[in-house]
Amino acid sequence: MKGNRFLRVPTQPIDVEVDSDIADLITRMRRVGFQGRKLAEIVDIWTNMLREKRCVIWLGLAGAMIPAGMRKLISYLIQRRMIDVLVTTGANLYHDTYEARGLKHYMGSPNLDDVALRKAKVDRIYDVLGDENRFYDTDKWIEKHLCDRLDDDTPYSSREILETLGEVLYKIAGAQSSITLDAYKSGIPIYCPALNDSSLGFSLTFANRRRKRRIIFDGLKDIDETAMITEKAQMTGVIYLGGGVPKNFIQQTAVVAGYQLNRDKSHNYAIQITTDMPVWGGLSGCTFEEAQSWGKISSGARMATCYSDITIALPLVVHALAQKHRKLSRNVPVFKWTQGNLGMTYRLTKT
Amino acid sequence: MKGNRFLRVPTQPIDVEVDSDIADLITRMRRVGFQGRKLAEIVDIWTNMLREKRCVIWLGLAGAMIPAGMRKLISYLIQRRMIDVLVTTGANLYHDTYEARGLKHYMGSPNLDDVALRKAKVDRIYDVLGDENRFYDTDKWIEKHLCDRLDDDTPYSSREILETLGEVLYKIAGAQSSITLDAYKSGIPIYCPALNDSSLGFSLTFANRRRKRRIIFDGLKDIDETAMITEKAQMTGVIYLGGGVPKNFIQQTAVVAGYQLNRDKSHNYAIQITTDMPVWGGLSGCTFEEAQSWGKISSGARMATCYSDITIALPLVVHALAQKHRKLSRNVPVFKWTQGNLGMTYRLTKT
Amino acid sequence: MKGNRFLRVPTQPIDVEVDSDIADLITRMRRVGFQGRKLAEIVDIWTNMLREKRCVIWLGLAGAMIPAGMRKLISYLIQRRMIDVLVTTGANLYHDTYEARGLKHYMGSPNLDDVALRKAKVDRIYDVLGDENRFYDTDKWIEKHLCDRLDDDTPYSSREILETLGEVLYKIAGAQSSITLDAYKSGIPIYCPALNDSSLGFSLTFANRRRKRRIIFDGLKDIDETAMITEKAQMTGVIYLGGGVPKNFIQQTAVVAGYQLNRDKSHNYAIQITTDMPVWGGLSGCTFEEAQSWGKISSGARMATCYSDITIALPLVVHALAQKHRKLSRNVPVFKWTQGNLGMTYRLTKT
Amino acid sequence: MKGNRFLRVPTQPIDVEVDSDIADLITRMRRVGFQGRKLAEIVDIWTNMLREKRCVIWLGLAGAMIPAGMRKLISYLIQRRMIDVLVTTGANLYHDTYEARGLKHYMGSPNLDDVALRKAKVDRIYDVLGDENRFYDTDKWIEKHLCDRLDDDTPYSSREILETLGEVLYKIAGAQSSITLDAYKSGIPIYCPALNDSSLGFSLTFANRRRKRRIIFDGLKDIDETAMITEKAQMTGVIYLGGGVPKNFIQQTAVVAGYQLNRDKSHNYAIQITTDMPVWGGLSGCTFEEAQSWGKISSGARMATCYSDITIALPLVVHALAQKHRKLSRNVPVFKWTQGNLGMTYRLTKT
Repeated sequence: MKGNRFLRVPTQPIDVEVDSDIADLITRMRRVGFQGRKLAEIVDIWTNMLREKRCVIWLGLAGAMIPAGMRKLISYLIQRRMIDVLVTTGANLYHDTYEARGLKHYMGSPNLDDVALRKAKVDRIYDVLGDENRFYDTDKWIEKHLCDRLDDDTPYSSREILETLGEVLYKIAGAQSSITLDAYKSGIPIYCPALNDSSLGFSLTFANRRRKRRIIFDGLKDIDETAMITEKAQMTGVIYLGGGVPKNFIQQTAVVAGYQLNRDKSHNYAIQITTDMPVWGGLSGCTFEEAQSWGKISSGARMATCYSDITIALPLVVHALAQKHRKLSRNVPVFKWTQGNLGMTYRLTKT
Repeated sequence: MKGNRFLRVPTQPIDVEVDSDIADLITRMRRVGFQGRKLAEIVDIWTNMLREKRCVIWLGLAGAMIPAGMRKLISYLIQRRMIDVLVTTGANLYHDTYEARGLKHYMGSPNLDDVALRKAKVDRIYDVLGDENRFYDTDKWIEKHLCDRLDDDTPYSSREILETLGEVLYKIAGAQSSITLDAYKSGIPIYCPALNDSSLGFSLTFANRRRKRRIIFDGLKDIDETAMITEKAQMTGVIYLGGGVPKNFIQQTAVVAGYQLNRDKSHNYAIQITTDMPVWGGLSGCTFEEAQSWGKISSGARMATCYSDITIALPLVVHALAQKHRKLSRNVPVFKWTQGNLGMTYRLTKT
Repeated sequence: MKGNRFLRVPTQPIDVEVDSDIADLITRMRRVGFQGRKLAEIVDIWTNMLREKRCVIWLGLAGAMIPAGMRKLISYLIQRRMIDVLVTTGANLYHDTYEARGLKHYMGSPNLDDVALRKAKVDRIYDVLGDENRFYDTDKWIEKHLCDRLDDDTPYSSREILETLGEVLYKIAGAQSSITLDAYKSGIPIYCPALNDSSLGFSLTFANRRRKRRIIFDGLKDIDETAMITEKAQMTGVIYLGGGVPKNFIQQTAVVAGYQLNRDKSHNYAIQITTDMPVWGGLSGCTFEEAQSWGKISSGARMATCYSDITIALPLVVHALAQKHRKLSRNVPVFKWTQGNLGMTYRLTKT
Repeated sequence: MKGNRFLRVPTQPIDVEVDSDIADLITRMRRVGFQGRKLAEIVDIWTNMLREKRCVIWLGLAGAMIPAGMRKLISYLIQRRMIDVLVTTGANLYHDTYEARGLKHYMGSPNLDDVALRKAKVDRIYDVLGDENRFYDTDKWIEKHLCDRLDDDTPYSSREILETLGEVLYKIAGAQSSITLDAYKSGIPIYCPALNDSSLGFSLTFANRRRKRRIIFDGLKDIDETAMITEKAQMTGVIYLGGGVPKNFIQQTAVVAGYQLNRDKSHNYAIQITTDMPVWGGLSGCTFEEAQSWGKISSGARMATCYSDITIALPLVVHALAQKHRKLSRNVPVFKWTQGNLGMTYRLTKT
């Protein structure tokens, strides 16, 4: 159909190539339709971010993905410096700490009898099980060791608390690897803006009540620090695995930074993997187009949304990135906080 | 089929009764199948909560439901004392403040050109539009008036900040009705555990930065206060409209209270309306059965989940409750905080 | 904000009006956001169809909605002539026949032990139960009575078979009301293009095998007859409750009629209630905008999609229509088939 | 936790192995949680089917997956004899024919202006575009060539029509590969029980009208033939990609065969990949547990459901199968129909 302006690029039915690795397969999915194509675009745009000269890459990680076996993938992204700042839930960090202490999650099923589980002190997360007694030990361990290193009457950001947790895991628990630990070692800040909405948070409250401590988690400090990162960044890329507070909080840094500097600080690259849908009107499921109306995502941003369970998409995407970037050389941001101010420099990092 | 133990109660196909009011229609939906039946069960279980002698009713309200026109329904529940504690997002409270100041949201469409909206300073929330200049005015107003009444270096719970906001709306803005205002007038505590994840939060951060203030939102204090409510309550009922932090935070009070008192403090009634699904493994979409394994919901609880958009289900449920309970007499909890401790009494309230 | 072209019509937060009936509540939902607004638009556009001078109204009904208690609502739409042609699944018509014979569905739960149900000969449809022995009786009854009145070696459309079924229910079973029966009495054609994909279909196959019959269901005849309806209609409105074959089949009539007449025969009004989503790329979840690209829906059509479970939305919509249109006067199409040709006239009908 | 009967098998967080192929990665996903684990189970159970001595493997393929680039993956499954019978939609077979004729689908976006597409004669399927003029050519081609080889007044099953189409593609079009063509060459029957619900179907109707033909597609014959396959099979495995008629129709064969033989003919293995959910009560989204209550799936079946878009999951699953089974030796069923009866033998096939 010569000249039809809409019919330019044919799709290419995907063929079986028996020696295909993951990166290759996903590359070939670029020319199919529906969500398969989107998965390929996710990898492409992440690669764009990695190739930018000076781009701060935010990862927003919702849910309770650690019990679902995603911990080491996130650690890998941190170690390889494929992300620069992590914003996540208390649930993820709590279960990360639990596994860092050598404790296990177990295979279960959504069809188990939950009243029987209750009696057996087993806590269910869809088809994964946790050991309530070991959870309780972990709460106590956090209550003791983390709080030992925090001061009273000192308003902390979640980053400061989590750096301390990373240090504790490193020095006291002697853990080999965990998200919090690897971030600590790599100088990657972690924010948990709703730290109070988790076992991690309530372990601190227990310390306050039972040990007569006055530890303070100052949520406003998280806004301030994260806004500074976006303010100082030349470019920003955002990656959302699920929605919730992590997504909204990172989106918000563009608005706050924009107000502070009185110029456009919208994010330049944006990818998300989610199972939520735009039609319900929530932030978790909203499109990046909607975010453009708010100036959270740049009008010219490269962006893609893939509707998929994270536990399917994330192993694929991370393996594809690993296979595409066996060597990676990036100018990564180095964050230095002094008296509430952020100094940000870049360091060439090869991984 | 005599004797078949499974085939006891026939369904009843719903018939058209032209003079049916909403309560009557929903009552008749009890005997259909699928989510229609669940909507009827939601109303029934909420009624059970209202009829309990001493039951603290928690409402967890996620999302940005105020731009979607749900504000007055929540105010009604507060005024009629059909709920006792509200846990919600900063987004809901921010848009509530915006509307309390007489400002409007507007009819839009998800198919609008978002880049054009950006140029016109119009912010889109699915099919609802907001006026970015008026949002900015509201930020400034909060930055000024709310912060005027908050002290520096004082770790506040979100409840304390929101009581102050209610007072400001009442005394300074002279607003007639709003969620925050009506809760203030009714003595209903509002918690916003992720207050920092919203315009409401960042207006406080602006005050800290630009006005050299040192206002502190202490997230841990929210855990402490909300746990006390569940600790002191004889019975608790929970209502979740959407998931997110509000749902998890209220669920968490059962765990924290249980640890503190060393006995079962799981919730006794539980209803939720959500569009999220259990199969993704997240807390937002998880079943109440799963919550029973954790001891968040009582093993003997009456509970129902209805999968529906809130903007369809909530108007129906609130009207059905209004029509079923034209007069309501309840022993409602009265909360009194003194130096970090909660005194809780009950007062017979007729509405 | 004077002059902002996007900010024209404010939303109106919905208030509780305790004497509201269903029609009134849904009317007030027009000015909220998200799916609540869409539900109101569904009622408005259906009303538009009813007020057109000569508009053939198609209803596509997917799923197994009869076990879920929706039978009498569909019968009501037929009796009041709020629809003119029904396209549906064999499942709906089979369960309609089952109930027309006085048999019941029962209240169940999705958490029952399905292996125990199997042993007890109980068939589960989510939270509804059926009596397998009575299903089997019904299969036999259809095999006998329906087939008695059908000729061998005669290619039937599903409409012809279903008219015969309506007649059998009327004359032999003496049923009072059912979808098939009421359609028979009202002269409303029913199409079941995948009649073979149901118990209704396989009962005919049983007759062929066991009774040595040669009954033929000619699927192509359904295409021909339905296309003729759209060809002869001045205007058409389409209502889809769920997707599947019923939606696609009605959409297809616009394409076939358009090819036959070599002019635009796209549908003029279009509403759908569904839980499927566009992002999966299927016809069931696709938008009416997508359908406009195919010429199935008119470029100028009034159209609305509401994402909701049918068992919530349908009782509301039908009651709202009933309350808005206590008296209804319409020019309804009268269909007369002679030797494969359709004669279509209109008759003023008051209900 | 010695002795806790629920905590037996730990999960294993998935690690990055940079040389992992697809089969290896998916194997490692067995021990994560949520849908990632389910994807691994899908591959495992499909492998079980392939290793059974005499198991007929049904594939139910819904939707319009061919425009989305899935055609060659299905052809691969046919050529390698990883499936034995295909039940699918007319849409899939129509677009397969279109591509077999050398015509293309094109890359698009769901955000295109559909009214502009209409004017340009471009038909949109989510983010894929088709050329309406070429579709029309294809309709004409089918109308002519397929109908040339069909007799009048002969009730055909869809299998018979589709075998003829395969032959036409082979002999007349000289196509190299397509689903219909490869099935024809491999002796794999294809059923399209709702053939009339597609362009493929209406091209036959056009022939009947415009060419004065009397071609008959007898839907009941499809029931009969497919039931015979399950009747004669020692074991059956079912694979559902999406729901709709293909899933229900294959499920139905177990019921019909069971009635005919008066013994349990439920399917022995069952896997499905879907985006539909059980809570809406439909057959497309229903669990295999529900199907066990009906005797469609065996009480002892190995079964798994993975909630995912097909365009993500299918390329992975087929590549994993290809990499796990570089050589495959199976006893595959050989179907021979004589005067309405099925002779079924097995032939050792190495691929």
